[in-house]
Amino acid sequence: MLSEHQIIRKIFAPLAKDYPGAMGLLDDAALLRYVDQKDLVVTQDMLVADIHFFPDDSPRDIGYKALAVNLSDLAAKGAKPVGYLLSIALPRNIKEAWLVECAEGLRMLQSAVGCHLIGGDTTSTDGPLTLSITAIGHLKTGCMINREGAGAGDMIYVTGTIGDAALGLHLRKDADLCQDWGLNTEHSNFLISRYLRPQPRVEFGYQMERYVSAAMDISDGLAGDLQKLCAVSNVGATIEINQIPLSQAVHIAVQNNQNAWQAVLAGGDDYELIICVMPSQVKDFENLARTCNTTLTHIGQVNGSRDNINIIGLDQLNIELSNLSYSHF
Amino acid sequence: MLSEHQIIRKIFAPLAKDYPGAMGLLDDAALLRYVDQKDLVVTQDMLVADIHFFPDDSPRDIGYKALAVNLSDLAAKGAKPVGYLLSIALPRNIKEAWLVECAEGLRMLQSAVGCHLIGGDTTSTDGPLTLSITAIGHLKTGCMINREGAGAGDMIYVTGTIGDAALGLHLRKDADLCQDWGLNTEHSNFLISRYLRPQPRVEFGYQMERYVSAAMDISDGLAGDLQKLCAVSNVGATIEINQIPLSQAVHIAVQNNQNAWQAVLAGGDDYELIICVMPSQVKDFENLARTCNTTLTHIGQVNGSRDNINIIGLDQLNIELSNLSYSHF
Repeated sequence: MLSEHQIIRKIFAPLAKDYPGAMGLLDDAALLRYVDQKDLVVTQDMLVADIHFFPDDSPRDIGYKALAVNLSDLAAKGAKPVGYLLSIALPRNIKEAWLVECAEGLRMLQSAVGCHLIGGDTTSTDGPLTLSITAIGHLKTGCMINREGAGAGDMIYVTGTIGDAALGLHLRKDADLCQDWGLNTEHSNFLISRYLRPQPRVEFGYQMERYVSAAMDISDGLAGDLQKLCAVSNVGATIEINQIPLSQAVHIAVQNNQNAWQAVLAGGDDYELIICVMPSQVKDFENLARTCNTTLTHIGQVNGSRDNINIIGLDQLNIELSNLSYSHF
Repeated sequence: MLSEHQIIRKIFAPLAKDYPGAMGLLDDAALLRYVDQKDLVVTQDMLVADIHFFPDDSPRDIGYKALAVNLSDLAAKGAKPVGYLLSIALPRNIKEAWLVECAEGLRMLQSAVGCHLIGGDTTSTDGPLTLSITAIGHLKTGCMINREGAGAGDMIYVTGTIGDAALGLHLRKDADLCQDWGLNTEHSNFLISRYLRPQPRVEFGYQMERYVSAAMDISDGLAGDLQKLCAVSNVGATIEINQIPLSQAVHIAVQNNQNAWQAVLAGGDDYELIICVMPSQVKDFENLARTCNTTLTHIGQVNGSRDNINIIGLDQLNIELSNLSYSHF
């Protein structure tokens, strides 16, 4: 196994080489140079083996996902990624090959997005492998998208398709669910890959700011995350199940087993965006999505019924969920 | 036990209330407002139970130390702390009282220093309690202190006293060492408190920039950390043992047992600063230390013998250390 110094120099420093302020990871800190009229957005997510991923997931997927979930938070704020810090606690039996693959997962995503590793920490642990990433993005001063701007009458959109990752997680744990849900191997692989490799909406995120009144990413489930957004904005919302965009695989699953709706509505890990848009901005907003090749679906409206989320089912009756989202405790 | 939402709202949000960009920790990200002509410095350290602290250390000390080690990195760069993000992975049997005390440790230090919690993540773990803090500071554009500026002829200083924390760690593990080292309970308590509660040199750090050619904090041991600094600067250094500032307790320990020198020179956790200063700046630099009530000691010189650290012993012969500093692997 490599020494701590070798891990940094050989595995992680190549991810930092194009960012001068990272100083080749030879320092304890990184420099973010002053950029005129730019605010910074910072976000930090921690991923723990057995909680956020399976210890036998591919290290490439684990590295990719650890960065993806943080970039998704930046996208929801309308910020363009600049760099990230990675702290990683490694069990002592970790292999060099594991680290090489994990770094490759990080590299693939940072290259696609145009940001860099700029710092962090490498330590050992007697427990599960743990990664903590802090991502930093920037945007024009005063232009951050927040959660408190949603107003009655806003249209509610989501990007992509909803529920893939939650069903993918169930399938990752229990392959027999394929039969319950009437899915073939191709469907199953698709859903699992959506769980393992969320696609943060980076480019669309940092371009959508001027049209958007509030946004957040879906990490803990559509229903619960929409409720969190509405709570901060002091509004309510109505969404309709038959408007929620589903992949073909999820469409088949919910047709074969109505119980799958619970996972679609309240399961997490999609890392798509919920976005509230004033009606006057809708046309330009939808045009931007086309330019960015981002699939966008109108799923409901914001209303004045403070903190009240109505989910209208296929039978036009309100749906009651047993729980709205994932919680660690 | 509290829910994830309650932990954030009740335990951590009070630490964020005076920083508007933290948005009460109700968001996934935090805003750092644009400040004219200020660069930002970011640093991230991870602390894992059983590796960086003992699970039965007081939670107040654990919270304090997690922030202190990050603020120490900012001090070494000459940056003034602005805010920090905390990600914490909690065993499921954690008690609310533990969290309250941990937050109190954070609060004490952030109040003393004038920075704020601005974001982070709360998760569960099946393993040891793990904290990851990212600290953010700012300084005048282009004025960050780095490790590569040391030049032959620079005077080498350290703040405070050296070796307290390393001996404190030994005593924390084995109280019987008191006898070997001829220490009484008061000495022992002092050394252990230096290990548990490092005092980052925050104020002196962000004022010293204009006099300093290179600096770093001592986290892994004086000898090894000085070697790291010299390697980046392509220089060597000579320091003399009889110039290293020792507390009364360490002074007694090394007199009674020469083996204690290994811990003093190559043990970590002091979080004092190593600072290189050109001779022309020495007078102003020493005056600043007096103004800041910071104890400063001249321990040696930078020279041109690339990457070569000479430690001159009490007998004027070079000392060979079995290892220079702590490494995780």
